[in-house]
Amino acid sequence: MNVEGRWRRTIEVVGDDVIVLDQAKLPYAIEWLALRTVEDVARAIRDMHIRGAPLIGATAAYGVAIAIRTGANLDAAYQQLAATRPTAINLRWALGEMQRLLAAGADPWAAAAKIADDDVAMCEAIGEHGKKIIEGLGKDRINVLTHCNAGWLATVDWGTATAPIYKAHDAGIPIHVWVEETRPRNQGMLTAWELLQHGVPHTVIADNAGGHLMQHGKVDLCIVGTDRTTRNGDVCNKIGTYLKGLAAHDNNVPFYAAVPSSSIDWTVGEPAEIPIEERNADEVRFMNGYGGRVEIVPRGSAVANPAFDVTPRRYMTGLITERGVATPATLAGMFEK
Amino acid sequence: MNVEGRWRRTIEVVGDDVIVLDQAKLPYAIEWLALRTVEDVARAIRDMHIRGAPLIGATAAYGVAIAIRTGANLDAAYQQLAATRPTAINLRWALGEMQRLLAAGADPWAAAAKIADDDVAMCEAIGEHGKKIIEGLGKDRINVLTHCNAGWLATVDWGTATAPIYKAHDAGIPIHVWVEETRPRNQGMLTAWELLQHGVPHTVIADNAGGHLMQHGKVDLCIVGTDRTTRNGDVCNKIGTYLKGLAAHDNNVPFYAAVPSSSIDWTVGEPAEIPIEERNADEVRFMNGYGGRVEIVPRGSAVANPAFDVTPRRYMTGLITERGVATPATLAGMFEK
Repeated sequence: MNVEGRWRRTIEVVGDDVIVLDQAKLPYAIEWLALRTVEDVARAIRDMHIRGAPLIGATAAYGVAIAIRTGANLDAAYQQLAATRPTAINLRWALGEMQRLLAAGADPWAAAAKIADDDVAMCEAIGEHGKKIIEGLGKDRINVLTHCNAGWLATVDWGTATAPIYKAHDAGIPIHVWVEETRPRNQGMLTAWELLQHGVPHTVIADNAGGHLMQHGKVDLCIVGTDRTTRNGDVCNKIGTYLKGLAAHDNNVPFYAAVPSSSIDWTVGEPAEIPIEERNADEVRFMNGYGGRVEIVPRGSAVANPAFDVTPRRYMTGLITERGVATPATLAGMFEK
Repeated sequence: MNVEGRWRRTIEVVGDDVIVLDQAKLPYAIEWLALRTVEDVARAIRDMHIRGAPLIGATAAYGVAIAIRTGANLDAAYQQLAATRPTAINLRWALGEMQRLLAAGADPWAAAAKIADDDVAMCEAIGEHGKKIIEGLGKDRINVLTHCNAGWLATVDWGTATAPIYKAHDAGIPIHVWVEETRPRNQGMLTAWELLQHGVPHTVIADNAGGHLMQHGKVDLCIVGTDRTTRNGDVCNKIGTYLKGLAAHDNNVPFYAAVPSSSIDWTVGEPAEIPIEERNADEVRFMNGYGGRVEIVPRGSAVANPAFDVTPRRYMTGLITERGVATPATLAGMFEK
C-alpha cells in the first residue's frame, strides 16, 4: 500500500537485507529497519517493531532464510523465533511451512518469498469476499468499525480487516471507518495512518466509544482481525475485541473477523486452550506520541497488561477467509480437502 | 479522604475563598485552586478542574453563594452555571436546591454547605449499603472492577462507587480493585491515586481488558458511578460503562451503580432522553502525564469524543442509593414519599 505516495510492502528484500517498516516509530516517524541476523528478526518481533499475526509469520519465514545464510544453528533459530510471541498462530504456521518447503528442496529465500506472496494473495481474496458483504448492506454510505490494526501494516500487503475497506473504497463505495485507538499500544493510530495514506475517510475514537456508537445506529458493520481462530470459529484478537463483539450482538450490528487460513489453529477447539500473552506493564504506563512519550500511571500503582481476548463464536456473524465467508459452523467444512 | 496523609474534602471554604483540588493536574501534581467569581466556578466545571457529577453539583452551589457575595446578576449566574456541562443531572439538582433553600430564607453559604454535607452523608450511606453487598459475596478476597472515577474526587468526600470499597477496606475485608484507565481523559488515574492515598490494593488496566478479566473469573463485582440515572434505572455514566455492563451480564458478574438520589432524573424515563455531551477532540489527541503531555493521534485524522453512554436497565443488577439497594424495578418506589 501507499507510504508517502509510493506503493510498498511492509517487508521487502533489498540486496542482502530484509527491510521492514519500523512500527514502533509509526505513525510519528517513518523509518525502515534492516534485519541481518536471527537475533535482529527475533527482537523485531518480540519488541513489536513489526506486529500483526500475518506479518509476524512472514517475518519469521525470512528469519529462517537469514539463519541459513548466516550459518546459524537452524534448530536453535526455529526455537528462538517460535518463542518471540505466544498467541499469534501464524508464527508457528509459517515456521512449519518453511520446514516443509525446505524439506522438499526449496531455496530458503524463495520459500520465504512464497509465504509473503501467499499472504498478499490471501489478503486480496479476503478483500474481494469482504467487499461483497459491504455491497450487500445496500446503504449509500457505510460506517465500518475496526479495532487494533489488522491493516496492511499487520500483513505483507492489503491487510486482513482493512482489505475489504480498501477494495470497497477503490470501487467507489462511500465508506467511513471508525478507528478505535486500541489501548494500551494504540495500534489504531497505525490504522488511522494507513487510511490517511490511502485517502479513506475515518475518525479515531477511544475504545470506550464503540459500543455507544452502535447503540446510536452509527455503525453498519464491524470487521476485526485475528491472531488465532479456533476450528470452531472462536476469535482470539487484540484485547478489547470481545467487548465490541458483545456490543455488536446487543445492537444487531454484523460482526466479522477477517481470517486468513494461516490464522486458524485446527488443533484448538475451545477458547481456553489459547495462551494469552501478558505483556510488559510499561506499555500501559507510558504513552508514545509525536516527539516522545509520557508516563501516565500513578507511580506506586500496579498494572496488568493482557494483550488478547477471545470473542466466543456465538458472537461472530461470520469469518471472512480467502476461500469465502464462513460461519463458525461452516468454517471447518470450507477447508476440508 | 487522605491527601498526603491529611483528611481533606475536595471542596472547602477557607476564609473568603472556595478551594478545590485541581483535578486537571492530578495525579501528576497536587495543587489547589481558589474560586472567587462565578466565572472561576464556571470555568473550573467546564474545563474539568473539578469533575464528577456530585462534586459538580456542590461546586455549582458554592458558585451561587459566590454570585450573591460578588453582587453578580443571579439569573445570569444560574444560567451560566447550568450551561457548563449538559449530562450530569446533579448540576441542575443542586442549582434547584439552592433556589429552594434561598427562597426559604437560608443563608447562601449555609445552603451550599448543606448541599456539600448532604453529599457526604449520601456517600457514606451508599458506602454502608454497598459494603453489605461485598460482605454478602462471602469470598476471602474480593476483586472489584470500577470504571472512571466515582471516587471521593468525584464527590465532596468518600465517593459513590468507591465508598463501599473504602468501607470494606476499613473493616478489614481483603479487597483489590481493578482500575480501568478510562480513556480519553484517564480518570482511572485519579481513582488509582486516591486508592494509593488510602492504601487500598489495586491494579490499573486498559479499558479493553475488563471484559477479558470477567471471562476468566477475575472480577467478583463491578461498581460504577452515574452522571444521570433514569427513573427506570437506566444508568448514564462515563463512556465505556455500557461495554462493562454487557461483559458483566455475559459472565454473571454482579453489576451495580452507586446512585445518590441527586443523580436520579425523575423527569426522564428512557435512555434516549438524556443528552450526551460531545467533548473537545483534543482530549483524545493529547495525553497528559508526569511532566507534560504528548500528541498521539495522526495529524490529519478526524476524532470523535462522546463523553457518556447509557447502560440499559436490563444490565443493571442493582442501584446502591443512600436509602438502600434497589433494582431498576424498585427504584422509584424506594423514593416515593
